[in-house]
Amino acid sequence: MKSDINQLMATRHLDAYIVASDHNYNAVRDYLTNGARITGGYVLQQRDEPAVLIVNPMEIEEAATSGLRVLSYSDLKYHELVQTHKEDPAALQVAFWQRMLQAAGIAAGRVGVYGSGDLNVYVDLFRMLQDGLEGYELVGEQGTTLFDEAMLTKDADELTRIQDVAKRTSEVIALTWDYIASHRAEGEQVVDADGIPLTIGNVKRFIRRALLDRDLEDTGMIFAQGRDGGFPHSRGNDNATLVQGQAIVFDLFPREIGGGYHHDMTRTWSIGYATDAVQEAYQTVMTAFDIGVENCKPGGFGSTPQEAVLDFFEAEGHPTSRSHPGTSTGYVHSLGHGVGLKIHERPRLSHLANDSIQKGNVVTIEPGLYYPDAGYGVRIEDMLYIAEDGSIVTLTDFHKELVIPLSG
Amino acid sequence: MKSDINQLMATRHLDAYIVASDHNYNAVRDYLTNGARITGGYVLQQRDEPAVLIVNPMEIEEAATSGLRVLSYSDLKYHELVQTHKEDPAALQVAFWQRMLQAAGIAAGRVGVYGSGDLNVYVDLFRMLQDGLEGYELVGEQGTTLFDEAMLTKDADELTRIQDVAKRTSEVIALTWDYIASHRAEGEQVVDADGIPLTIGNVKRFIRRALLDRDLEDTGMIFAQGRDGGFPHSRGNDNATLVQGQAIVFDLFPREIGGGYHHDMTRTWSIGYATDAVQEAYQTVMTAFDIGVENCKPGGFGSTPQEAVLDFFEAEGHPTSRSHPGTSTGYVHSLGHGVGLKIHERPRLSHLANDSIQKGNVVTIEPGLYYPDAGYGVRIEDMLYIAEDGSIVTLTDFHKELVIPLSG
Repeated sequence: MKSDINQLMATRHLDAYIVASDHNYNAVRDYLTNGARITGGYVLQQRDEPAVLIVNPMEIEEAATSGLRVLSYSDLKYHELVQTHKEDPAALQVAFWQRMLQAAGIAAGRVGVYGSGDLNVYVDLFRMLQDGLEGYELVGEQGTTLFDEAMLTKDADELTRIQDVAKRTSEVIALTWDYIASHRAEGEQVVDADGIPLTIGNVKRFIRRALLDRDLEDTGMIFAQGRDGGFPHSRGNDNATLVQGQAIVFDLFPREIGGGYHHDMTRTWSIGYATDAVQEAYQTVMTAFDIGVENCKPGGFGSTPQEAVLDFFEAEGHPTSRSHPGTSTGYVHSLGHGVGLKIHERPRLSHLANDSIQKGNVVTIEPGLYYPDAGYGVRIEDMLYIAEDGSIVTLTDFHKELVIPLSG
Repeated sequence: MKSDINQLMATRHLDAYIVASDHNYNAVRDYLTNGARITGGYVLQQRDEPAVLIVNPMEIEEAATSGLRVLSYSDLKYHELVQTHKEDPAALQVAFWQRMLQAAGIAAGRVGVYGSGDLNVYVDLFRMLQDGLEGYELVGEQGTTLFDEAMLTKDADELTRIQDVAKRTSEVIALTWDYIASHRAEGEQVVDADGIPLTIGNVKRFIRRALLDRDLEDTGMIFAQGRDGGFPHSRGNDNATLVQGQAIVFDLFPREIGGGYHHDMTRTWSIGYATDAVQEAYQTVMTAFDIGVENCKPGGFGSTPQEAVLDFFEAEGHPTSRSHPGTSTGYVHSLGHGVGLKIHERPRLSHLANDSIQKGNVVTIEPGLYYPDAGYGVRIEDMLYIAEDGSIVTLTDFHKELVIPLSG
């Protein structure tokens, strides 16, 4: 958790870090600045010293909400550097990094570089920084980074927010079920009271509004019917009308508005009735889900529940990404992932990773089966918390019925 | 525009480009993939050949909507590379880049690197790619990039979408004005029919809902009252109640839902009445706005309208970022910027840049005055299109009255 950062820096032999950011939402910046609504800037920290936030002067008031020590580009006389390096934007950046490091009290040493930015800028800038910043070594990191590791275990404040987002998201799932159920069938077509067909676009609009009413925002939900649901990341066709007896994969992963903690859950629904093939796949995935949860244990590896689920699916005759690497039918992805300010965090519950499961983790369990040529996909996902007492607490509060009966 | 890309590559002596992306929305990826709803992947193009999109196999259906040639990581046998380079994620990436370049028909040469990603990964990866990819030179770019230059001039399809977003945004501004006007005053407090004070949080929720009803999403609007409005990027305090006679800076810059074209506009409003100081500042900013528009001419420089506005503000006795570099009072920012898939594009209307203004540009004009210690800021912004006949077409369709009379 956040209080581990100094220790995690020591483990990596880092004397300091710098987190760069741009106008895009950046989870690490958000994490370090306690949600300050800034659109750029840098966070720097010398190990065992307080972090410093450096921002555009237009943003100093928002930056102040971080509780960090705040400096503006003007405090660092950025405008003078702009004049000096008018013709050479990369040299300007090198000079500015030098000034930022000094202002943050980082005199020399190994500096971990994090955050995000435009790659075209950094292709040359990294080289120039390595050459131009005397006494500093810029250190990259592959795999599980310092911040991945810190964010892996949630502290009490984070958990409170995550539970609150889970509650609000669960309300939206329930409302969505009721909204669909309030329709009626005309032949296989799902229609409203006036006989107007219900489209996926209508449903998504309903969901986005219900999220907004709860200060949550959609980040690209999946509501994919029939064959579309057979591709794990197909978002669904807004113009498609809902019909009875087709599996719908509904994967919702909203976050606090403007960027913040996510919830992540999936249900598979079939309106009116379900076909035999979908019912059978659904039961198999439900069993896989239970196997996944049972094998998710603090102190264990993330690969363990995935391997248990792979064993089960393979025994049932389904191709998997282990038995048939690169397959696009059967069970084609990993079992789950950590969730927090990023939708995909550590630990990975994958047979290709060796992440461990720890108390304080928030993870998804989301087995699925995908048969686009047979016209369906099925996925079930809850988000879970590994509590201090070692128990697995379900954060997604909604039932797992397959068939939505129409009552309209 | 998009059709210029091959020519722009030639000018830069690029044989090819690669655009990397991650789960974040990426404007260049969106531009090249025609809005495909993918959450990662790479776009590669050899000059004068069609572009290739390489994605996670879970996303091939979404990727297909791009109209590009699509390859999946499985097509490139990524899973084999994962096995081979299990212990070395950077080496895995080098091998994968090699395979992607080959698959895209790029045998050698100067390859421009664009897109965005986690800096901790690329610190080492760029060096390893430079060393490991024999026959290729990875080329970065500072300042106005290939894609900045392409996106600078909008084609007919883009303009149609931009005009449509402008129309919908303008409707939301009008609804917001009417919503506030429907309230009444109790003392200086703005309250609803039941006497409950109207908060900035209420107004923002109203606006987000009105945007959503039009398939637009907020990307961090500013609705800042009194002193808060004196800091150009203060978002405004959700818990603050609206009061009469305070300047409110309302800067709205939504985009098509899920990522797409933006609109960008600002109004300054004062509820019930305006103080003399705010009225005076408002008139000055209105004049500056007109000066800005008058001096915004195709074939001219972006610095010209900014300098005209700087001359005017300075003559009126206000400090500016030219007369007082680094100032946080007076006129503290540039006059405007291009808008498109990114909220900040070229050309910059700044005295510190030498961008030119061209037909096909979409730009903002947004002068402002900021006096937080006096308890106010004022900004007025329209978005404008530089038409083929050289005329300046206003895309923001809403009046510039300062005072919202209460009718509730």
